[in-house]
Amino acid sequence: MQLVHTVTELRAALGEHRDTAFVPTMGNLHSGHISLIDLARKHGSPVVASIFVNPLQFGIGEDFERYPRTLAADCSQLDAAGCDLVFAPDAQEMYSQPQTFHVQPPLADELCGAFRPGHFQGVATVVLKLFNMVQPRYAVFGKKDYQQLFILKGMVRQFNLPIVILEGETSRADDGLALSSRNAYLTKEERAEAPRLFRLLREAAHRIEVGERDFTAVEQAVSDDLRAHGWRVDYVSVRSQVNLLAPKSQESDSVIIAAAHLGRTRLIDNIECCSGSIDLKRQEI
Amino acid sequence: MQLVHTVTELRAALGEHRDTAFVPTMGNLHSGHISLIDLARKHGSPVVASIFVNPLQFGIGEDFERYPRTLAADCSQLDAAGCDLVFAPDAQEMYSQPQTFHVQPPLADELCGAFRPGHFQGVATVVLKLFNMVQPRYAVFGKKDYQQLFILKGMVRQFNLPIVILEGETSRADDGLALSSRNAYLTKEERAEAPRLFRLLREAAHRIEVGERDFTAVEQAVSDDLRAHGWRVDYVSVRSQVNLLAPKSQESDSVIIAAAHLGRTRLIDNIECCSGSIDLKRQEI
Repeated sequence: MQLVHTVTELRAALGEHRDTAFVPTMGNLHSGHISLIDLARKHGSPVVASIFVNPLQFGIGEDFERYPRTLAADCSQLDAAGCDLVFAPDAQEMYSQPQTFHVQPPLADELCGAFRPGHFQGVATVVLKLFNMVQPRYAVFGKKDYQQLFILKGMVRQFNLPIVILEGETSRADDGLALSSRNAYLTKEERAEAPRLFRLLREAAHRIEVGERDFTAVEQAVSDDLRAHGWRVDYVSVRSQVNLLAPKSQESDSVIIAAAHLGRTRLIDNIECCSGSIDLKRQEI
Repeated sequence: MQLVHTVTELRAALGEHRDTAFVPTMGNLHSGHISLIDLARKHGSPVVASIFVNPLQFGIGEDFERYPRTLAADCSQLDAAGCDLVFAPDAQEMYSQPQTFHVQPPLADELCGAFRPGHFQGVATVVLKLFNMVQPRYAVFGKKDYQQLFILKGMVRQFNLPIVILEGETSRADDGLALSSRNAYLTKEERAEAPRLFRLLREAAHRIEVGERDFTAVEQAVSDDLRAHGWRVDYVSVRSQVNLLAPKSQESDSVIIAAAHLGRTRLIDNIECCSGSIDLKRQEI
């Protein structure tokens, strides 16, 4: 596996390859990331991972400074996983001049965007830059960052990028907690509490799948339970899988998305739920 | 020469070509456009021209509806000029869903942007889309649209697009008027008056080149003369070639840019001026 730090080295290493599968990351890799590498390997070659903690997508007071930088360990994992090339630029290489051009995506002020102003503009902008550097045929993103994945799929479609987005399922610990680099921030007590988020989302999804259409009540129940156990809730929201807007009552494919803080750590998770047509008919009666 | 209307046809026609030289246009071609095709042919192959009147870059009350559509005549000219492929999509092909992702460029509210809100966002967005469709190695833009060229060069650099921008000199009629599709809107009397714009810009450039550093006075003189001859002036502005901002008094490379209306027709033009170091020294004394 080769490690490069500049766009010039990257392009030289890639040459005329046309089937590159690309996995952008912020490093501090865990088995969730490795599952994305596995998915990339099934589709394209060479497999390229990027490691860059993007300042553009962090707000003031967020965890840009303390976000873990673990390049050597990351490279060992990527090598073992069969990654061919790692692109780890520094900030100077990514932003050799102040970034004055941005991608303005829709839904940037919704859900996580309402709590992280500029976050999705920063994500879309850096991903577009990385796409233009790597020029992959495939790019892999995890479903844990559901809104991010949704926005990036839209960007590829609306900017006519010649790239296929592959979606990686969320990897979870045995107790259901979605794997995240930020889990490392949790104290022992918080780590024991953290699986509640997914447990509640699963219960909420079940309620919807068996016919509940009062989405506000479902959201409120999850929020209340989290708050009762010491969480600070940013949002719990039932959305349409189609457009990430509030679902119509007859909508069959929705997703419950949530973001909440345990102590100093912000956790996000989501679960898709498909209500069958039987439930819809029952609803209509 | 091949004519295609869809991205699918375009990509099939281009295949694995890696040296494409691309000339985006809005059609209604004149010899200025053909000079851009000539420039493209010197650098890359195949030469691809696009013809698309982009609604996204026209404001309310502008000339989107009456902008001349002359596809057959355009294709004849392109064929004769040695263009290999014409991509002429319709609005449905370019915007198969409402465009909710945009490129937000800097300087979008300056100069022409101050008078055409959203114009440069629309230009940058459609050009990014066209770039991703055509995937050229070279792209050609004329210096007549100086601010557009400046913004697109910035976009390529800041989004790390693997594209080289080639700059075409402004083509002019014998009397100095910059060639433009919009010249066709001019009445006979307006056409006779129109060369005044470039004549005044040339005089202004001469004043700066021989040492004048009161740029406001230079701008005002051009505006006054235009207004005295029936023009409605949007702006006349001396700017730095480096960043298109107001130049510092010691700046050596500037550009005078102007936009003004003759009757129902909005004309733009510009001229670069280089003040030598001798003048700078004289200035410092």
